[in-house]
Amino acid sequence: MPYPNMLEISIVADLDTCLPLTSVSIHAAHRLISPYIHHTRKIRAFKARGAFHALLRLCSELGIEEVRKRGVTTHSSGNHAQALALAAATLNIPAHIVMPSISTSSKIAGTKAYNARVLFSGSTEPERVTVVNEVMRETGAILVPPYDHRDIILGQGTAALELEKQAAALMKGVDTEVDLKKNHPLDAVIAPLGPGGLLAGTATYFSNTPSTHVFGAEPSFQGGDDGRRALAAGSCIPTVSSLTVADGLRMPVGEINWTVISDQTKVRGAFAVTEDQSKDAMKLVLERMKLVIEPSAAVPLAVVLFDEEFRTIAEKEGGEKGWDVGVIFSGGNTTVEAICNLHGNR
Amino acid sequence: MPYPNMLEISIVADLDTCLPLTSVSIHAAHRLISPYIHHTRKIRAFKARGAFHALLRLCSELGIEEVRKRGVTTHSSGNHAQALALAAATLNIPAHIVMPSISTSSKIAGTKAYNARVLFSGSTEPERVTVVNEVMRETGAILVPPYDHRDIILGQGTAALELEKQAAALMKGVDTEVDLKKNHPLDAVIAPLGPGGLLAGTATYFSNTPSTHVFGAEPSFQGGDDGRRALAAGSCIPTVSSLTVADGLRMPVGEINWTVISDQTKVRGAFAVTEDQSKDAMKLVLERMKLVIEPSAAVPLAVVLFDEEFRTIAEKEGGEKGWDVGVIFSGGNTTVEAICNLHGNR
Repeated sequence: MPYPNMLEISIVADLDTCLPLTSVSIHAAHRLISPYIHHTRKIRAFKARGAFHALLRLCSELGIEEVRKRGVTTHSSGNHAQALALAAATLNIPAHIVMPSISTSSKIAGTKAYNARVLFSGSTEPERVTVVNEVMRETGAILVPPYDHRDIILGQGTAALELEKQAAALMKGVDTEVDLKKNHPLDAVIAPLGPGGLLAGTATYFSNTPSTHVFGAEPSFQGGDDGRRALAAGSCIPTVSSLTVADGLRMPVGEINWTVISDQTKVRGAFAVTEDQSKDAMKLVLERMKLVIEPSAAVPLAVVLFDEEFRTIAEKEGGEKGWDVGVIFSGGNTTVEAICNLHGNR
Repeated sequence: MPYPNMLEISIVADLDTCLPLTSVSIHAAHRLISPYIHHTRKIRAFKARGAFHALLRLCSELGIEEVRKRGVTTHSSGNHAQALALAAATLNIPAHIVMPSISTSSKIAGTKAYNARVLFSGSTEPERVTVVNEVMRETGAILVPPYDHRDIILGQGTAALELEKQAAALMKGVDTEVDLKKNHPLDAVIAPLGPGGLLAGTATYFSNTPSTHVFGAEPSFQGGDDGRRALAAGSCIPTVSSLTVADGLRMPVGEINWTVISDQTKVRGAFAVTEDQSKDAMKLVLERMKLVIEPSAAVPLAVVLFDEEFRTIAEKEGGEKGWDVGVIFSGGNTTVEAICNLHGNR
């Protein structure tokens, strides 16, 4: 077999070349992806940050010509697929994206629109990995894992950096950048907790800022709250089979992500919400903020709005003034049809 | 009658105190409303620009204490209602907003959320004006007209200024401001044409920039293309009774707006699209740009996508490179229910 399998590549890259999981590394990641930020905003999902960062790091390790010659591959049902396709197209690198054949048509169309070669697989992890391994054997393409990789975590963490920047500027009432060494405006930040890359990145970014508490948010439907249960049990839960509407948060927490998320100095806790709470939060964002977000993206806001435990903590510790809470939304992969199916018959 | 009626106030204000309709005045308007821009963005409709500008101008003419003592009033079925309510709340001025009782509940709730006193009227212009006049008699409130007022036009025109700024930065690939004296990146700008304040403001802003052609966009349904017909006939059409889905564009063009829009050195032409074309454009924006816009806001994009005449002009004059077209979206006053009604049964 001419190319190592996924797990080996991932581990080799982590041991040998990845930056440490610190907020300093996230600042470095932000500098690296900054020229591409307007591209990452295009797909309106944090995944583009991780994909650009991992791909740029790969290019700086192997040389861009080598990466162009071999191409890259991944498996994903949606956001990471489009993210890597966009990053690869921007850098003129061939991309072979393995998507479960049940992926929504808009996600497949989105991925193809960035000129990626799309291959289909079954929807389980082993089925996806089998096709990815075939692609790697046939083409020599390099794997850029969808999550659970330090370069991905660091890339996702740049969303937290920008959130803090924007919050600082907003709260000072200015349009310009504010010195983040002196300003830590947020009392809490709440990020979606699915595979965990975004929460791990967020927690890594705020790991030097004890005044900002980081929380994860999950759907409770059919055991989708594996992160919360894992934190309570003290060990990672490797499989989840929830069909929650928050489909971006159905996956179990990745192993490397778990090392960050289970660190209580980094993540203070996780909360879970019902399907209706997620839908209500999504509706509020659509109608009042005029943003189209998918149900997964609404889960953190649903915690802030509806979770009594979270609200009690915020009230108690925030005192008179309350807590200033940063809420991370990601992503917006949905269709008008899906929105109507979700909200039409309630 | 202790207070003059609407028309008198409007004319007095225009003759005596308004700035001239020039791009220089729009720069001045932008400086005046800049501290409130983050507020205007809250309601995601250009109307807030006009409302803030008109109200700030009123305060600088009469003194803010006088305006606070008397309060302000207007009539509007939606965006201007919320816009004036927000501007008044921000400046601590009482607002009495007359809304047709058939206004959508989200618009009424939005207006009330800014602490305005909401009064209901019938839906025709005379019915609205009757209630406004009662309010003015009873409270002494000052009228801030919903459109067709120079301060409103200048405020709306700041949207065009920001569009040009953003386009210049985007096309240069930078995040910072670009000198607009040297950069006029857009070959064309297309704005919705309803009562005409936004198009008049846009045309006023670009009136010194011959390389940027300004167009209006309307719905054609049931004669909603009054602007296009008026331009062809050479005179304003005073009444329209279209029930187009683009409900923000149902009103006839206002008189002062018409003086700008009928000036061929300012507005090159107007195009009209079908209901389905507006809906298709709206769907595209929702699904690909992840922005919730109301049907009215999708009309200009529908022209760019579907109007053969516009596309032919752009192709012919744009040459190989094509035209860079700025498209103004406004606003986003809709609900999940309305979106589903609109798109559910096609």
